[in-house]
Amino acid sequence: MPAPQAPFDPNQTPKLTIAELDELVGELAPFVALYGFKVDEIGFGWARVRLPYDYNFVRPGGTISGPAMMALADYGMYVGLMGAIGPVALAVTTNLNINFLHKPAEKDLLCDARLIKLGKRLAVGDMSIHPEGDDRMCAHVTATYSIPPQ
Amino acid sequence: MPAPQAPFDPNQTPKLTIAELDELVGELAPFVALYGFKVDEIGFGWARVRLPYDYNFVRPGGTISGPAMMALADYGMYVGLMGAIGPVALAVTTNLNINFLHKPAEKDLLCDARLIKLGKRLAVGDMSIHPEGDDRMCAHVTATYSIPPQ
Amino acid sequence: MPAPQAPFDPNQTPKLTIAELDELVGELAPFVALYGFKVDEIGFGWARVRLPYDYNFVRPGGTISGPAMMALADYGMYVGLMGAIGPVALAVTTNLNINFLHKPAEKDLLCDARLIKLGKRLAVGDMSIHPEGDDRMCAHVTATYSIPPQ
Amino acid sequence: MPAPQAPFDPNQTPKLTIAELDELVGELAPFVALYGFKVDEIGFGWARVRLPYDYNFVRPGGTISGPAMMALADYGMYVGLMGAIGPVALAVTTNLNINFLHKPAEKDLLCDARLIKLGKRLAVGDMSIHPEGDDRMCAHVTATYSIPPQ
Repeated sequence: MPAPQAPFDPNQTPKLTIAELDELVGELAPFVALYGFKVDEIGFGWARVRLPYDYNFVRPGGTISGPAMMALADYGMYVGLMGAIGPVALAVTTNLNINFLHKPAEKDLLCDARLIKLGKRLAVGDMSIHPEGDDRMCAHVTATYSIPPQ
Repeated sequence: MPAPQAPFDPNQTPKLTIAELDELVGELAPFVALYGFKVDEIGFGWARVRLPYDYNFVRPGGTISGPAMMALADYGMYVGLMGAIGPVALAVTTNLNINFLHKPAEKDLLCDARLIKLGKRLAVGDMSIHPEGDDRMCAHVTATYSIPPQ
Repeated sequence: MPAPQAPFDPNQTPKLTIAELDELVGELAPFVALYGFKVDEIGFGWARVRLPYDYNFVRPGGTISGPAMMALADYGMYVGLMGAIGPVALAVTTNLNINFLHKPAEKDLLCDARLIKLGKRLAVGDMSIHPEGDDRMCAHVTATYSIPPQ
Repeated sequence: MPAPQAPFDPNQTPKLTIAELDELVGELAPFVALYGFKVDEIGFGWARVRLPYDYNFVRPGGTISGPAMMALADYGMYVGLMGAIGPVALAVTTNLNINFLHKPAEKDLLCDARLIKLGKRLAVGDMSIHPEGDDRMCAHVTATYSIPPQ
Protein backbone atom coordinates (compact mmCIF):
# COMPACT_ATOMS: atom_id res chain seq x y z
CA MET A 1 0.00 0.00 0.00
CA PRO A 2 1.45 3.40 -0.87
CA ALA A 3 2.25 5.74 2.00
CA PRO A 4 0.38 8.93 1.12
CA GLN A 5 2.57 11.89 0.44
CA ALA A 6 3.01 14.72 2.85
CA PRO A 7 1.38 18.00 1.80
CA PHE A 8 4.84 19.55 1.36
CA ASP A 9 8.36 18.43 0.56
CA PRO A 10 9.72 16.69 3.67
CA ASN A 11 13.23 16.82 2.22
CA GLN A 12 13.47 20.58 2.70
CA THR A 13 15.99 21.81 5.24
CA PRO A 14 14.35 21.94 8.68
CA LYS A 15 13.82 25.37 10.17
CA LEU A 16 15.92 24.62 13.24
CA THR A 17 18.61 22.21 14.38
CA ILE A 18 18.46 19.70 17.21
CA ALA A 19 20.65 22.02 19.29
CA GLU A 20 18.30 24.97 18.69
CA LEU A 21 15.31 22.78 19.48
CA ASP A 22 16.86 21.56 22.72
CA GLU A 23 17.47 25.14 23.80
CA LEU A 24 13.88 26.15 22.99
CA VAL A 25 12.42 23.18 24.79
CA GLY A 26 14.60 23.57 27.86
CA GLU A 27 12.80 26.81 28.61
CA LEU A 28 9.30 25.74 27.79
CA ALA A 29 8.61 22.09 28.33
CA PRO A 30 9.56 20.69 31.71
CA PHE A 31 8.07 17.29 30.93
CA VAL A 32 10.83 16.76 28.40
CA ALA A 33 13.40 16.84 31.20
CA LEU A 34 11.04 14.88 33.41
CA TYR A 35 10.93 11.95 31.02
CA GLY A 36 14.42 12.41 29.59
CA PHE A 37 13.21 12.66 25.98
CA LYS A 38 15.88 12.99 23.28
CA VAL A 39 15.63 14.13 19.67
CA ASP A 40 17.26 11.63 17.32
CA GLU A 41 16.32 13.36 14.06
CA ILE A 42 14.51 16.49 13.00
CA GLY A 43 13.23 17.24 9.50
CA PHE A 44 10.83 19.57 7.73
CA GLY A 45 7.56 18.31 9.17
CA TRP A 46 8.89 15.11 10.70
CA ALA A 47 11.00 13.92 13.61
CA ARG A 48 12.18 10.89 15.53
CA VAL A 49 12.24 11.29 19.31
CA ARG A 50 13.28 8.83 21.99
CA LEU A 51 12.19 7.83 25.50
CA PRO A 52 15.22 6.20 27.15
CA TYR A 53 14.27 2.96 28.82
CA ASP A 54 16.19 3.37 32.01
CA TYR A 55 15.01 6.85 32.85
CA ASN A 56 13.60 7.56 36.31
CA PHE A 57 9.98 6.79 36.93
CA VAL A 58 9.20 5.44 33.52
CA ARG A 59 8.58 1.79 33.98
CA PRO A 60 9.59 0.30 37.33
CA GLY A 61 8.06 -3.11 37.81
CA GLY A 62 7.58 -3.48 34.08
CA THR A 63 4.17 -1.80 34.08
CA ILE A 64 3.01 -0.03 30.94
CA SER A 65 3.55 3.70 31.08
CA GLY A 66 0.75 5.02 28.91
CA PRO A 67 1.22 8.62 30.02
CA ALA A 68 4.88 8.52 29.03
CA MET A 69 3.89 7.38 25.54
CA MET A 70 1.28 10.14 25.24
CA ALA A 71 3.87 12.72 26.29
CA LEU A 72 6.41 11.26 23.86
CA ALA A 73 4.01 11.48 20.92
CA ASP A 74 3.01 15.02 21.79
CA TYR A 75 6.69 15.93 21.90
CA GLY A 76 7.46 14.20 18.59
CA MET A 77 4.70 16.16 16.89
CA TYR A 78 5.98 19.39 18.43
CA VAL A 79 9.51 18.73 17.19
CA GLY A 80 8.35 17.88 13.66
CA LEU A 81 6.20 21.01 13.58
CA MET A 82 9.07 23.21 14.77
CA GLY A 83 11.12 21.68 11.95
CA ALA A 84 8.53 22.96 9.49
CA ILE A 85 7.63 26.37 10.91
CA GLY A 86 10.61 27.29 13.07
CA PRO A 87 10.65 28.14 16.77
CA VAL A 88 7.06 29.28 17.30
CA ALA A 89 6.87 28.98 21.03
CA LEU A 90 3.13 29.39 21.32
CA ALA A 91 1.99 26.52 19.13
CA VAL A 92 -0.22 24.41 21.39
CA THR A 93 -1.86 21.00 21.19
CA THR A 94 -5.62 21.18 20.71
CA ASN A 95 -6.40 17.48 20.28
CA LEU A 96 -4.58 14.20 20.80
CA ASN A 97 -5.90 10.71 20.18
CA ILE A 98 -3.91 7.60 21.11
CA ASN A 99 -4.50 3.89 20.55
CA PHE A 100 -2.41 1.56 22.68
CA LEU A 101 -1.73 -1.57 20.63
CA HIS A 102 0.76 -3.83 22.39
CA LYS A 103 2.76 -3.85 25.59
CA PRO A 104 6.21 -2.67 24.50
CA ALA A 105 9.40 -4.62 24.97
CA GLU A 106 11.73 -3.33 27.70
CA LYS A 107 13.77 -1.07 25.47
CA ASP A 108 14.03 2.58 24.54
CA LEU A 109 10.85 3.73 22.81
CA LEU A 110 11.09 5.61 19.51
CA CYS A 111 8.36 7.88 18.19
CA ASP A 112 8.24 8.64 14.47
CA ALA A 113 6.20 11.77 13.83
CA ARG A 114 5.17 13.25 10.50
CA LEU A 115 2.79 16.06 9.65
CA ILE A 116 -0.14 15.07 7.47
CA LYS A 117 -1.49 18.62 7.34
CA LEU A 118 0.41 21.88 7.57
CA GLY A 119 -2.02 24.74 7.35
CA LYS A 120 -1.75 28.36 8.42
CA ARG A 121 -3.77 27.82 11.56
CA LEU A 122 -3.73 24.09 12.19
CA ALA A 123 -1.23 21.28 11.78
CA VAL A 124 -2.08 17.58 12.12
CA GLY A 125 0.45 14.85 12.81
CA ASP A 126 0.51 11.07 12.67
CA MET A 127 2.83 9.35 15.15
CA SER A 128 3.84 5.74 15.64
CA ILE A 129 5.71 4.45 18.68
CA HIS A 130 7.77 1.28 18.71
CA PRO A 131 10.59 -0.15 20.81
CA GLU A 132 14.11 0.24 19.43
CA GLY A 133 14.97 -2.75 17.29
CA ASP A 134 11.35 -3.91 17.02
CA ASP A 135 9.19 -2.66 14.15
CA ARG A 136 5.90 -3.60 15.80
CA MET A 137 4.00 -0.45 16.71
CA CYS A 138 3.04 -0.35 20.37
CA ALA A 139 0.99 2.84 20.09
CA HIS A 140 -0.42 5.04 17.34
CA VAL A 141 -1.26 8.70 17.84
CA THR A 142 -2.77 11.58 15.91
CA ALA A 143 -2.61 15.13 17.20
CA THR A 144 -3.57 18.65 16.17
CA TYR A 145 -1.65 21.81 16.99
CA SER A 146 -2.98 25.33 16.74
CA ILE A 147 -0.48 27.75 15.22
CA PRO A 148 -0.85 31.34 16.46
CA PRO A 149 -1.22 34.20 13.97
CA GLN A 150 2.13 35.81 13.14
CA MET B 1 10.64 7.22 7.40
CA PRO B 2 9.94 3.49 7.58
CA ALA B 3 6.30 2.44 7.58
CA PRO B 4 6.00 0.23 10.68
CA GLN B 5 5.18 -3.36 9.92
CA ALA B 6 1.79 -4.83 10.45
CA PRO B 7 1.51 -7.29 13.36
CA PHE B 8 0.94 -10.13 10.90
CA ASP B 9 1.80 -11.02 7.31
CA PRO B 10 -0.43 -8.88 5.07
CA ASN B 11 0.51 -11.05 2.08
CA GLN B 12 -1.50 -14.00 3.37
CA THR B 13 -4.55 -14.98 1.36
CA PRO B 14 -7.56 -13.01 2.58
CA LYS B 15 -10.29 -14.98 4.34
CA LEU B 16 -12.96 -13.95 1.85
CA THR B 17 -13.24 -12.61 -1.68
CA ILE B 18 -14.77 -9.35 -2.84
CA ALA B 19 -17.81 -11.28 -4.05
CA GLU B 20 -18.25 -12.98 -0.66
CA LEU B 21 -17.79 -9.63 1.08
CA ASP B 22 -20.39 -7.94 -1.12
CA GLU B 23 -22.88 -10.66 -0.30
CA LEU B 24 -22.23 -10.35 3.44
CA VAL B 25 -22.51 -6.59 3.38
CA GLY B 26 -25.66 -6.53 1.29
CA GLU B 27 -27.48 -8.15 4.18
CA LEU B 28 -25.98 -6.18 7.00
CA ALA B 29 -24.94 -2.69 6.08
CA PRO B 30 -27.51 -0.56 4.32
CA PHE B 31 -25.26 2.50 4.36
CA VAL B 32 -23.02 0.77 1.85
CA ALA B 33 -25.81 0.81 -0.71
CA LEU B 34 -26.81 4.27 0.43
CA TYR B 35 -23.42 5.72 -0.47
CA GLY B 36 -22.65 3.33 -3.31
CA PHE B 37 -19.36 2.14 -1.79
CA LYS B 38 -17.30 -0.32 -3.82
CA VAL B 39 -14.46 -2.64 -2.79
CA ASP B 40 -11.45 -2.23 -5.10
CA GLU B 41 -9.11 -4.59 -3.22
CA ILE B 42 -9.27 -6.84 -0.18
CA GLY B 43 -6.27 -8.37 1.59
CA PHE B 44 -5.41 -10.01 4.88
CA GLY B 45 -5.87 -7.04 7.21
CA TRP B 46 -6.09 -4.36 4.54
CA ALA B 47 -8.43 -3.06 1.87
CA ARG B 48 -9.05 -0.29 -0.62
CA VAL B 49 -12.64 0.92 -0.86
CA ARG B 50 -14.17 3.60 -3.06
CA LEU B 51 -16.83 6.29 -2.80
CA PRO B 52 -17.96 7.07 -6.36
CA TYR B 53 -18.05 10.78 -6.99
CA ASP B 54 -21.30 10.97 -8.83
CA TYR B 55 -23.39 8.95 -6.45
CA ASN B 56 -26.69 10.35 -5.19
CA PHE B 57 -26.60 12.70 -2.26
CA VAL B 58 -22.87 12.73 -1.85
CA ARG B 59 -21.69 16.14 -2.81
CA PRO B 60 -24.22 18.32 -4.66
CA GLY B 61 -23.09 21.91 -4.75
CA GLY B 62 -19.51 20.87 -4.08
CA THR B 63 -19.90 20.95 -0.30
CA ILE B 64 -17.69 18.71 1.78
CA SER B 65 -19.38 15.50 2.83
CA GLY B 66 -17.71 14.70 6.11
CA PRO B 67 -20.25 12.02 7.07
CA ALA B 68 -19.65 10.18 3.79
CA MET B 69 -15.91 10.08 4.55
CA MET B 70 -16.54 8.78 8.07
CA ALA B 71 -18.78 6.05 6.68
CA LEU B 72 -16.22 5.20 4.00
CA ALA B 73 -13.41 4.80 6.53
CA ASP B 74 -15.57 2.68 8.81
CA TYR B 75 -16.37 0.48 5.85
CA GLY B 76 -12.74 0.20 4.73
CA MET B 77 -11.75 -0.97 8.19
CA TYR B 78 -14.58 -3.49 8.22
CA VAL B 79 -13.51 -4.91 4.87
CA GLY B 80 -9.85 -5.19 5.90
CA LEU B 81 -10.87 -6.87 9.14
CA MET B 82 -13.11 -9.36 7.34
CA GLY B 83 -10.13 -10.11 5.10
CA ALA B 84 -8.18 -11.11 8.21
CA ILE B 85 -10.79 -12.93 10.29
CA GLY B 86 -13.40 -14.01 7.77
CA PRO B 87 -17.11 -13.18 7.77
CA VAL B 88 -17.73 -12.42 11.44
CA ALA B 89 -20.95 -10.56 11.14
CA LEU B 90 -21.03 -9.27 14.67
CA ALA B 91 -17.76 -7.35 14.73
CA VAL B 92 -18.74 -3.80 15.66
CA THR B 93 -17.01 -0.44 15.75
CA THR B 94 -16.30 0.76 19.28
CA ASN B 95 -14.31 3.93 18.51
CA LEU B 96 -13.62 6.05 15.45
CA ASN B 97 -11.49 9.19 15.27
CA ILE B 98 -11.25 11.29 12.12
CA ASN B 99 -9.16 14.31 11.18
CA PHE B 100 -10.34 16.23 8.13
CA LEU B 101 -7.27 17.65 6.42
CA HIS B 102 -8.17 19.21 3.08
CA LYS B 103 -11.25 19.72 0.96
CA PRO B 104 -11.07 16.90 -1.58
CA ALA B 105 -10.99 17.35 -5.33
CA GLU B 106 -14.21 16.48 -7.16
CA LYS B 107 -13.31 12.88 -7.88
CA ASP B 108 -13.99 9.42 -6.51
CA LEU B 109 -12.58 9.07 -3.01
CA LEU B 110 -10.39 6.09 -2.16
CA CYS B 111 -9.86 4.83 1.36
CA ASP B 112 -6.79 2.72 2.12
CA ALA B 113 -7.31 0.75 5.32
CA ARG B 114 -4.79 -1.40 7.16
CA LEU B 115 -4.95 -3.07 10.54
CA ILE B 116 -2.29 -1.95 13.02
CA LYS B 117 -3.50 -4.33 15.71
CA LEU B 118 -5.23 -7.67 15.29
CA GLY B 119 -5.97 -9.10 18.71
CA LYS B 120 -8.44 -11.72 19.85
CA ARG B 121 -10.89 -9.16 21.17
CA LEU B 122 -9.92 -5.89 19.54
CA ALA B 123 -8.64 -4.79 16.16
CA VAL B 124 -7.36 -1.30 15.37
CA GLY B 125 -7.10 0.17 11.89
CA ASP B 126 -5.44 3.17 10.30
CA MET B 127 -7.19 4.64 7.27
CA SER B 128 -6.26 7.38 4.82
CA ILE B 129 -8.65 8.89 2.33
CA HIS B 130 -7.59 10.65 -0.85
CA PRO B 131 -9.16 11.51 -4.21
CA GLU B 132 -8.38 9.19 -7.09
CA GLY B 133 -5.29 10.40 -8.91
CA ASP B 134 -4.23 12.72 -6.08
CA ASP B 135 -1.94 11.40 -3.33
CA ARG B 136 -2.74 14.19 -0.89
CA MET B 137 -4.70 12.77 2.03
CA CYS B 138 -7.98 14.61 2.61
CA ALA B 139 -8.84 12.73 5.81
CA HIS B 140 -7.10 10.39 8.25
CA VAL B 141 -8.99 7.97 10.46
CA THR B 142 -8.29 5.44 13.18
CA ALA B 143 -10.92 3.01 14.38
CA THR B 144 -11.33 0.11 16.80
CA TYR B 145 -13.56 -2.91 16.28
CA SER B 146 -14.63 -5.32 18.96
CA ILE B 147 -14.48 -8.95 17.84
CA PRO B 148 -17.06 -11.21 19.52
CA PRO B 149 -15.94 -14.41 21.26
CA GLN B 150 -16.17 -17.45 18.98
CA MET C 1 -31.09 21.35 28.44
CA PRO C 2 -28.56 22.36 31.04
CA ALA C 3 -25.16 23.21 29.62
CA PRO C 4 -22.90 22.75 32.63
CA GLN C 5 -19.82 24.95 32.78
CA ALA C 6 -20.13 26.28 29.26
CA PRO C 7 -17.72 29.10 28.46
CA PHE C 8 -20.66 31.42 27.73
CA ASP C 9 -24.27 31.90 28.75
CA PRO C 10 -26.32 29.17 27.04
CA ASN C 11 -29.53 31.01 27.89
CA GLN C 12 -28.82 33.77 25.41
CA THR C 13 -31.12 34.00 22.40
CA PRO C 14 -29.79 31.78 19.62
CA LYS C 15 -28.51 33.54 16.53
CA LEU C 16 -30.96 31.79 14.24
CA THR C 17 -34.26 29.94 14.40
CA ILE C 18 -35.01 26.36 13.44
CA ALA C 19 -36.66 27.63 10.26
CA GLU C 20 -33.59 29.68 9.32
CA LEU C 21 -31.35 26.72 10.10
CA ASP C 22 -33.43 24.37 7.96
CA GLU C 23 -33.15 26.78 5.06
CA LEU C 24 -29.37 27.09 5.45
CA VAL C 25 -28.89 23.35 5.71
CA GLY C 26 -31.13 22.54 2.78
CA GLU C 27 -28.62 24.25 0.52
CA LEU C 28 -25.46 22.93 2.06
CA ALA C 29 -25.78 19.57 3.64
CA PRO C 30 -27.37 16.85 1.54
CA PHE C 31 -26.74 14.19 4.18
CA VAL C 32 -29.36 15.87 6.35
CA ALA C 33 -32.04 15.06 3.79
CA LEU C 34 -30.45 11.68 3.20
CA TYR C 35 -30.93 10.64 6.81
CA GLY C 36 -34.05 12.69 7.47
CA PHE C 37 -32.54 14.57 10.42
CA LYS C 38 -34.80 17.01 12.28
CA VAL C 39 -33.97 19.85 14.68
CA ASP C 40 -36.00 19.58 17.89
CA GLU C 41 -34.37 22.50 19.72
CA ILE C 42 -31.72 25.11 19.03
CA GLY C 43 -30.01 27.29 21.62
CA PHE C 44 -26.96 29.48 21.99
CA GLY C 45 -24.24 26.83 21.75
CA TRP C 46 -26.50 23.80 22.13
CA ALA C 47 -29.08 21.80 20.20
CA ARG C 48 -31.16 18.66 20.18
CA VAL C 49 -31.42 16.90 16.82
CA ARG C 50 -33.29 13.74 15.86
CA LEU C 51 -32.78 10.73 13.59
CA PRO C 52 -36.25 9.32 12.86
CA TYR C 53 -36.31 5.57 13.33
CA ASP C 54 -38.27 4.64 10.28
CA TYR C 55 -36.32 6.63 7.77
CA ASN C 56 -35.05 4.93 4.62
CA PHE C 57 -31.80 3.04 4.82
CA VAL C 58 -31.17 3.63 8.46
CA ARG C 59 -31.59 0.34 10.17
CA PRO C 60 -33.20 -2.42 8.14
CA GLY C 61 -32.67 -5.78 9.75
CA GLY C 62 -31.99 -4.14 13.06
CA THR C 63 -28.27 -3.71 12.40
CA ILE C 64 -26.43 -0.89 14.10
CA SER C 65 -26.01 2.14 11.90
CA GLY C 66 -22.77 3.64 13.19
CA PRO C 67 -22.36 6.01 10.25
CA ALA C 68 -25.85 7.43 10.83
CA MET C 69 -24.90 8.20 14.45
CA MET C 70 -21.66 9.87 13.38
CA ALA C 71 -23.56 12.00 10.89
CA LEU C 72 -26.19 12.84 13.52
CA ALA C 73 -23.59 14.01 16.03
CA ASP C 74 -21.76 16.08 13.44
CA TYR C 75 -25.07 17.70 12.56
CA GLY C 76 -26.01 18.36 16.19
CA MET C 77 -22.70 20.13 16.75
CA TYR C 78 -23.21 22.18 13.60
CA VAL C 79 -26.68 23.26 14.70
CA GLY C 80 -25.49 24.23 18.20
CA LEU C 81 -22.59 26.18 16.71
CA MET C 82 -24.86 28.02 14.29
CA GLY C 83 -27.02 28.90 17.31
CA ALA C 84 -23.99 30.60 18.85
CA ILE C 85 -22.35 32.28 15.87
CA GLY C 86 -25.14 32.61 13.31
CA PRO C 87 -25.24 31.25 9.78
CA VAL C 88 -21.54 30.91 9.00
CA ALA C 89 -21.73 28.56 6.09
CA LEU C 90 -18.05 27.76 5.93
CA ALA C 91 -17.55 26.39 9.42
CA VAL C 92 -16.14 22.89 8.88
CA THR C 93 -15.46 19.88 11.05
CA THR C 94 -11.76 19.31 11.64
CA ASN C 95 -11.95 16.38 14.11
CA LEU C 96 -14.61 13.99 15.32
CA ASN C 97 -14.21 11.21 17.87
CA ILE C 98 -17.01 8.76 18.64
CA ASN C 99 -17.35 5.98 21.19
CA PHE C 100 -20.16 3.49 20.53
CA LEU C 101 -21.46 2.32 23.89
CA HIS C 102 -24.58 0.19 23.48
CA LYS C 103 -26.77 -1.06 20.67
CA PRO C 104 -29.68 1.38 20.64
CA ALA C 105 -33.30 0.42 21.07
CA GLU C 106 -35.41 0.54 17.92
CA LYS C 107 -36.62 4.10 18.36
CA ASP C 108 -35.82 7.58 17.11
CA LEU C 109 -32.34 8.61 18.18
CA LEU C 110 -31.83 11.98 19.86
CA CYS C 111 -28.50 13.79 19.95
CA ASP C 112 -27.90 16.43 22.61
CA ALA C 113 -25.05 18.71 21.58
CA ARG C 114 -23.40 21.46 23.61
CA LEU C 115 -20.31 23.52 22.96
CA ILE C 116 -17.58 23.17 25.56
CA LYS C 117 -15.32 25.69 23.83
CA LEU C 118 -16.32 28.65 21.70
CA GLY C 119 -13.19 30.42 20.52
CA LYS C 120 -12.59 32.77 17.61
CA ARG C 121 -11.05 30.09 15.44
CA LEU C 122 -12.13 26.78 16.99
CA ALA C 123 -15.24 25.44 18.67
CA VAL C 124 -15.42 22.10 20.48
CA GLY C 125 -18.64 20.22 21.20
CA ASP C 126 -19.67 17.31 23.39
CA MET C 127 -22.55 15.18 22.09
CA SER C 128 -24.50 12.31 23.58
CA ILE C 129 -26.88 10.12 21.61
CA HIS C 130 -29.69 8.11 23.16
CA PRO C 131 -32.96 6.57 21.97
CA GLU C 132 -36.10 8.56 22.65
CA GLY C 133 -37.54 7.58 26.02
CA ASP C 134 -34.34 5.85 27.15
CA ASP C 135 -31.71 7.84 29.05
CA ARG C 136 -28.93 5.35 28.44
CA MET C 137 -26.37 6.86 26.09
CA CYS C 138 -25.70 4.67 23.06
CA ALA C 139 -22.88 6.82 21.71
CA HIS C 140 -20.72 9.71 22.90
CA VAL C 141 -19.00 12.11 20.54
CA THR C 142 -16.64 15.07 20.68
CA ALA C 143 -15.97 17.22 17.64
CA THR C 144 -14.03 20.32 16.65
CA TYR C 145 -15.10 22.88 14.07
CA SER C 146 -12.87 25.45 12.46
CA ILE C 147 -14.51 28.88 12.18
CA PRO C 148 -13.32 30.94 9.20
CA PRO C 149 -12.02 34.48 9.72
CA GLN C 150 -14.73 37.10 9.22
CA MET D 1 -20.95 14.24 41.84
CA PRO D 2 -23.95 13.43 39.67
CA ALA D 3 -23.36 10.79 37.02
CA PRO D 4 -26.15 11.45 34.52
CA GLN D 5 -27.45 8.47 32.62
CA ALA D 6 -24.77 6.07 33.79
CA PRO D 7 -25.41 2.46 32.84
CA PHE D 8 -25.43 1.48 36.51
CA ASP D 9 -26.22 2.99 39.90
CA PRO D 10 -23.36 5.35 40.77
CA ASN D 11 -24.57 5.53 44.36
CA GLN D 12 -23.53 1.96 45.09
CA THR D 13 -20.67 1.49 47.53
CA PRO D 14 -17.37 1.62 45.66
CA LYS D 15 -15.41 -1.62 45.49
CA LEU D 16 -12.38 -0.14 47.22
CA THR D 17 -11.47 2.79 49.45
CA ILE D 18 -9.05 5.62 48.74
CA ALA D 19 -6.53 3.95 51.06
CA GLU D 20 -6.82 0.65 49.20
CA LEU D 21 -6.52 2.44 45.88
CA ASP D 22 -3.42 4.32 46.99
CA GLU D 23 -1.80 1.07 48.00
CA LEU D 24 -2.64 -0.58 44.67
CA VAL D 25 -1.39 2.37 42.66
CA GLY D 26 1.83 2.73 44.63
CA GLU D 27 2.93 -0.60 43.26
CA LEU D 28 1.77 -0.20 39.70
CA ALA D 29 1.73 3.34 38.49
CA PRO D 30 4.92 5.33 38.96
CA PHE D 31 3.56 8.32 37.09
CA VAL D 32 1.14 8.92 39.94
CA ALA D 33 4.06 9.61 42.28
CA LEU D 34 5.83 11.48 39.50
CA TYR D 35 3.02 14.01 39.17
CA GLY D 36 1.88 13.89 42.79
CA PHE D 37 -1.72 12.95 41.91
CA LYS D 38 -4.19 12.66 44.81
CA VAL D 39 -7.60 11.00 45.00
CA ASP D 40 -10.21 13.38 46.44
CA GLU D 41 -13.21 11.08 46.00
CA ILE D 42 -13.91 7.59 44.73
CA GLY D 43 -17.32 6.16 43.85
CA PHE D 44 -18.84 3.28 41.94
CA GLY D 45 -17.81 4.24 38.42
CA TRP D 46 -16.69 7.78 39.18
CA ALA D 47 -13.87 9.67 40.87
CA ARG D 48 -12.37 13.07 41.46
CA VAL D 49 -8.58 13.22 41.28
CA ARG D 50 -6.22 16.17 41.76
CA LEU D 51 -2.98 17.47 40.27
CA PRO D 52 -1.41 19.74 42.91
CA TYR D 53 -0.30 23.01 41.38
CA ASP D 54 3.03 23.33 43.09
CA TYR D 55 4.31 19.87 42.36
CA ASN D 56 7.76 19.43 40.80
CA PHE D 57 8.04 19.74 37.06
CA VAL D 58 4.41 20.47 36.40
CA ARG D 59 4.28 24.02 35.25
CA PRO D 60 7.42 26.10 35.76
CA GLY D 61 7.29 29.26 33.73
CA GLY D 62 3.53 29.02 33.50
CA THR D 63 3.58 26.89 30.36
CA ILE D 64 0.68 24.55 29.70
CA SER D 65 1.41 20.99 30.72
CA GLY D 66 -0.67 18.99 28.32
CA PRO D 67 0.99 15.68 29.20
CA ALA D 68 0.20 16.19 32.88
CA MET D 69 -3.47 16.68 32.01
CA MET D 70 -3.50 13.54 29.84
CA ALA D 71 -1.94 11.55 32.67
CA LEU D 72 -4.41 13.03 35.17
CA ALA D 73 -7.42 12.04 33.06
CA ASP D 74 -6.09 8.54 32.49
CA TYR D 75 -5.64 8.23 36.24
CA GLY D 76 -9.11 9.57 37.02
CA MET D 77 -10.66 7.00 34.69
CA TYR D 78 -8.59 4.24 36.29
CA VAL D 79 -9.71 5.24 39.78
CA GLY D 80 -13.39 5.40 38.79
CA LEU D 81 -13.12 2.02 37.11
CA MET D 82 -11.46 0.46 40.15
CA GLY D 83 -14.36 1.86 42.19
CA ALA D 84 -16.74 -0.12 39.99
CA ILE D 85 -14.88 -3.39 39.46
CA GLY D 86 -12.45 -3.57 42.36
CA PRO D 87 -8.66 -3.85 42.23
CA VAL D 88 -8.17 -5.43 38.80
CA ALA D 89 -4.53 -4.64 38.29
CA LEU D 90 -4.40 -5.57 34.65
CA ALA D 91 -7.05 -3.24 33.30
CA VAL D 92 -5.27 -1.18 30.63
CA THR D 93 -6.06 1.88 28.56
CA THR D 94 -6.72 1.08 24.91
CA ASN D 95 -7.74 4.54 23.66
CA LEU D 96 -7.61 8.10 24.97
CA ASN D 97 -8.82 11.23 23.22
CA ILE D 98 -8.26 14.70 24.68
CA ASN D 99 -9.39 18.16 23.63
CA PHE D 100 -7.51 21.06 25.20
CA LEU D 101 -9.95 23.93 25.61
CA HIS D 102 -8.40 26.75 27.61
CA LYS D 103 -5.13 27.51 29.32
CA PRO D 104 -5.84 26.72 32.96
CA ALA D 105 -5.49 29.18 35.83
CA GLU D 106 -2.46 28.63 38.08
CA LYS D 107 -4.23 26.41 40.60
CA ASP D 108 -4.60 22.74 41.42
CA LEU D 109 -6.32 20.91 38.58
CA LEU D 110 -9.28 18.65 39.35
CA CYS D 111 -10.42 15.84 37.06
CA ASP D 112 -13.98 14.55 37.36
CA ALA D 113 -14.24 11.09 35.81
CA ARG D 114 -17.37 9.02 35.25
CA LEU D 115 -17.93 5.81 33.37
CA ILE D 116 -20.40 6.03 30.49
CA LYS D 117 -20.08 2.34 29.65
CA LEU D 118 -19.26 -0.53 31.97
CA GLY D 119 -19.18 -3.75 29.98
CA LYS D 120 -17.58 -7.08 30.69
CA ARG D 121 -14.66 -6.42 28.37
CA LEU D 122 -14.60 -2.67 27.84
CA ALA D 123 -15.28 0.40 29.95
CA VAL D 124 -15.54 3.94 28.58
CA GLY D 125 -15.13 7.09 30.65
CA ASP D 126 -15.81 10.78 30.18
CA MET D 127 -13.50 13.16 32.05
CA SER D 128 -13.49 16.91 32.50
CA ILE D 129 -10.57 18.86 33.93
CA HIS D 130 -10.89 22.27 35.51
CA PRO D 131 -8.88 24.40 37.94
CA GLU D 132 -10.00 24.34 41.57
CA GLY D 133 -12.50 27.11 42.17
CA ASP D 134 -13.14 27.68 38.45
CA ASP D 135 -15.93 25.77 36.70
CA ARG D 136 -14.61 26.40 33.21
CA MET D 137 -13.35 23.15 31.71
CA CYS D 138 -9.76 23.42 30.49
CA ALA D 139 -9.69 19.95 28.95
CA HIS D 140 -12.16 17.20 28.06
CA VAL D 141 -11.17 13.56 27.70
CA THR D 142 -12.72 10.24 26.76
CA ALA D 143 -10.91 6.97 27.31
CA THR D 144 -11.47 3.24 26.94
CA TYR D 145 -10.07 0.54 29.20
CA SER D 146 -9.87 -3.14 28.38
CA ILE D 147 -10.88 -5.36 31.31
CA PRO D 148 -9.13 -8.74 31.34
CA PRO D 149 -11.17 -11.95 31.57
CA GLN D 150 -11.52 -13.14 35.17
